[in-house]
Amino acid sequence: MSTEPEGPSPAHLTPEEFRALGYRAIDWIADYMATVADRPVLSTVEPGEIRDGLPADPPTEPEPFDDVLADLDRVIMPGITHWQSPGFFGYFPANASGPAILGDLVSSGLGVQGMLWSTSPACTEVEQVMLDWLVRAAGLPDHFLSDGPGGGVIQDSASSASLCALVAARERAGGNELLDRLVAYVSSETHSSLEKGARVAGLRAGHLRVVPTDGEQRMDADELATMVAADQVAGLVPFFVCATAGSTSTTAFDPTEAICDVAEANDLWVHLDAAFAGSATVCPEYRWVIDGVDRVDSYCFNPHKWLLTNFDCSAFWVRDRATLLDALSILPEYLRNEASASGAVVDYRDWHVPMGRRFRSLKLWFVVRHYGIAGLQAHVRRHVAWAEWLADQVRTHPSLELAAPRTLSLVCLRHVDGDDRTRHMVDEVNRSGEAFLTHTVLDGRYVLRVAIGGTATTRSHVEELWDRLRVLADG
Amino acid sequence: MSTEPEGPSPAHLTPEEFRALGYRAIDWIADYMATVADRPVLSTVEPGEIRDGLPADPPTEPEPFDDVLADLDRVIMPGITHWQSPGFFGYFPANASGPAILGDLVSSGLGVQGMLWSTSPACTEVEQVMLDWLVRAAGLPDHFLSDGPGGGVIQDSASSASLCALVAARERAGGNELLDRLVAYVSSETHSSLEKGARVAGLRAGHLRVVPTDGEQRMDADELATMVAADQVAGLVPFFVCATAGSTSTTAFDPTEAICDVAEANDLWVHLDAAFAGSATVCPEYRWVIDGVDRVDSYCFNPHKWLLTNFDCSAFWVRDRATLLDALSILPEYLRNEASASGAVVDYRDWHVPMGRRFRSLKLWFVVRHYGIAGLQAHVRRHVAWAEWLADQVRTHPSLELAAPRTLSLVCLRHVDGDDRTRHMVDEVNRSGEAFLTHTVLDGRYVLRVAIGGTATTRSHVEELWDRLRVLADG
Repeated sequence: MSTEPEGPSPAHLTPEEFRALGYRAIDWIADYMATVADRPVLSTVEPGEIRDGLPADPPTEPEPFDDVLADLDRVIMPGITHWQSPGFFGYFPANASGPAILGDLVSSGLGVQGMLWSTSPACTEVEQVMLDWLVRAAGLPDHFLSDGPGGGVIQDSASSASLCALVAARERAGGNELLDRLVAYVSSETHSSLEKGARVAGLRAGHLRVVPTDGEQRMDADELATMVAADQVAGLVPFFVCATAGSTSTTAFDPTEAICDVAEANDLWVHLDAAFAGSATVCPEYRWVIDGVDRVDSYCFNPHKWLLTNFDCSAFWVRDRATLLDALSILPEYLRNEASASGAVVDYRDWHVPMGRRFRSLKLWFVVRHYGIAGLQAHVRRHVAWAEWLADQVRTHPSLELAAPRTLSLVCLRHVDGDDRTRHMVDEVNRSGEAFLTHTVLDGRYVLRVAIGGTATTRSHVEELWDRLRVLADG
Repeated sequence: MSTEPEGPSPAHLTPEEFRALGYRAIDWIADYMATVADRPVLSTVEPGEIRDGLPADPPTEPEPFDDVLADLDRVIMPGITHWQSPGFFGYFPANASGPAILGDLVSSGLGVQGMLWSTSPACTEVEQVMLDWLVRAAGLPDHFLSDGPGGGVIQDSASSASLCALVAARERAGGNELLDRLVAYVSSETHSSLEKGARVAGLRAGHLRVVPTDGEQRMDADELATMVAADQVAGLVPFFVCATAGSTSTTAFDPTEAICDVAEANDLWVHLDAAFAGSATVCPEYRWVIDGVDRVDSYCFNPHKWLLTNFDCSAFWVRDRATLLDALSILPEYLRNEASASGAVVDYRDWHVPMGRRFRSLKLWFVVRHYGIAGLQAHVRRHVAWAEWLADQVRTHPSLELAAPRTLSLVCLRHVDGDDRTRHMVDEVNRSGEAFLTHTVLDGRYVLRVAIGGTATTRSHVEELWDRLRVLADG
């Protein structure tokens, strides 16, 4: 084979070259961490501005790493809204943290695929143990443990978890042959991913029913029962209901126990979506937010939101894994192997849509060991305490009012003089560059949301935000 | 607020602490890169062995980073099958590379969410430009460019891309109301994710038809036409066909042009799946493998397989993005924003199932700039050349035969004395620890696959593998 090339590709990095460039990348991130608080939180670029800074064609020849890092600062950074800024109070937080970044880095370095147990046993078994750790840390029911009838898996997002719950529920209800008659139930406060999932899973238009909520955005379980009964009379097949613990708009909490009562009487699959709020259950005093979790068929929360673990890391459990596997298992010849055939192992590719999968549990392992459960609790507790303080300030301010109950670390408020004033407050805060807020609409009224939960956020950032809001409310 | 905690959580890393630990993590990876060739490629742990090495309960108190790294070596590494070993020839490769690892690291450090353009404009626009770069690099049709009617997006996997293609096709065909009558077509060599996707998308059992293949595992387009016609006569609605460029078993190539002829006459959506082989099209001489791509409705290939970009990075294009968006767009109030409402921007959350999304295009940007297109071409060409050489050796060996045509860098072979001998060769190579192979079955016969494409693989690794195979074949 004398005429063919011998070594790896041109520009292949030796371990020593990687080490040197790796230090540079780490330096870049450390410097970013040190300066992120001073950057305007919200990017103010116009549509197309970042694109225009990049060449239309890829380079033919290799370019120096220095140039890439320089362009990162020059071209890319103006288009970044800084989710890791201590002044980011928008949406829900997306907690990054040092140990999570480094756990994910090690995962990238290993570059293994965990589609089957046999393709890298540690990738599967560490994930099982980490999901078991979360069961212990959050006081979840034993049937979610990996050595029980159910088990947990890391999904990329709560949206994907919702889809898998719908698909498993559909399987239990009789499969795709029944699709024309299957009906699922959500409320207006349920996350939009359920509507998307229902569409993807093939439900007929209109077969995702919206159950009314009470004055505090909680699903009305009596209404659910009435709607289920009516659908049954009409010859339809109610099969699924999503209960939400901590809605996206206001962190409202559905009455999961009452919903389970209806579901059990009518053979509905209950999925409990605690995407944001679930992180709080590492604190025993907040476990009530998922009361009823021991009765649901599937449960999901996102450590990548509020538990210091970089996206993507959505933890999803099922009470009975057999149904999920029946729905999603396909075994082509090239994936057959002794370990899978023995039944002694879990092959996680059968637990979600994608086949390939990264070693995502490593970052969770790094996080839990670095902080300890006590550190995770302290992380949650201070955000809740600061939100409680902020809600108290709002409550006593003559021109402001709480728009929804403050339960965890989200404060929803509005100006008593109406939407324009509230909108003006959001716009002015965002324009300042020092903090970033998003909004929602409740009962037709515009609501300012303050979601406290950033990894780098301190008490003083909340106090500074309040100072600004107070002045804007008065002004 | 005097009684509440003030700073970030206990164990929060300062930028300087992060820098120091970050260097340690980089060192760990550099050392791993330097030693991976010496490690047995295939993990030999028993089911449960890794789990047993981890505590059943999470730690309450923080633990030192040193302990975590030590346990990584002691507890985790025995359970790793080394996909980045130069001796890994199993499945298809999952190319990691230095620049991809560092691009992903920077993405983790930034920790932004790209669900909407407005949540971090650079996350969306860099992705658009990178997908455009791949269009240029691979000679894909202009209608896939982001300023045309279609566009590209990074999905986590080709499986998810297949599901999105099915869902968009279903939308175009009339939506979920027609599901009972919708019929899709694949071949026995089509990736299993299409079967999974069809199930998830709600097709009826039996409504994913398997079109016969010819002697070289290519879908028979005449048979497709016959089956489509028969289904139409039966009152069903053929709506989707998947053509494969480079099948998983043997890198067989379906006749995409002929399939498009049938599809265009019958209004079928054509999805072209080139998950592995698509990377080769950065070389003009291999663009024929996706002949017909200018006629398909959607197209997918995985830079995370063979283009030096860490998982997950599956590139997916649609000819007409409106259909995809019609199928997947949901807009709740809390995501409404001026930029989206203006129509001037792309919101990628509407292009796939998950809502949250990482800044995955950064690693692609790092890769393409570090290697240049010339470097990517060289990477592909040497693997193909080595595979060609290996296939020549097999062809001239009296006890071995090629089980399928060698087109790119996959060589499929078997022992002339039957399955037991071939299986023995696979088992012995894997037992040696020096290389790792997987198998497939063709026409009922067991076939040994050699997939060449590892980032660190050199010519000598292929030669050593051949020496071993030759001896095993003779022995």
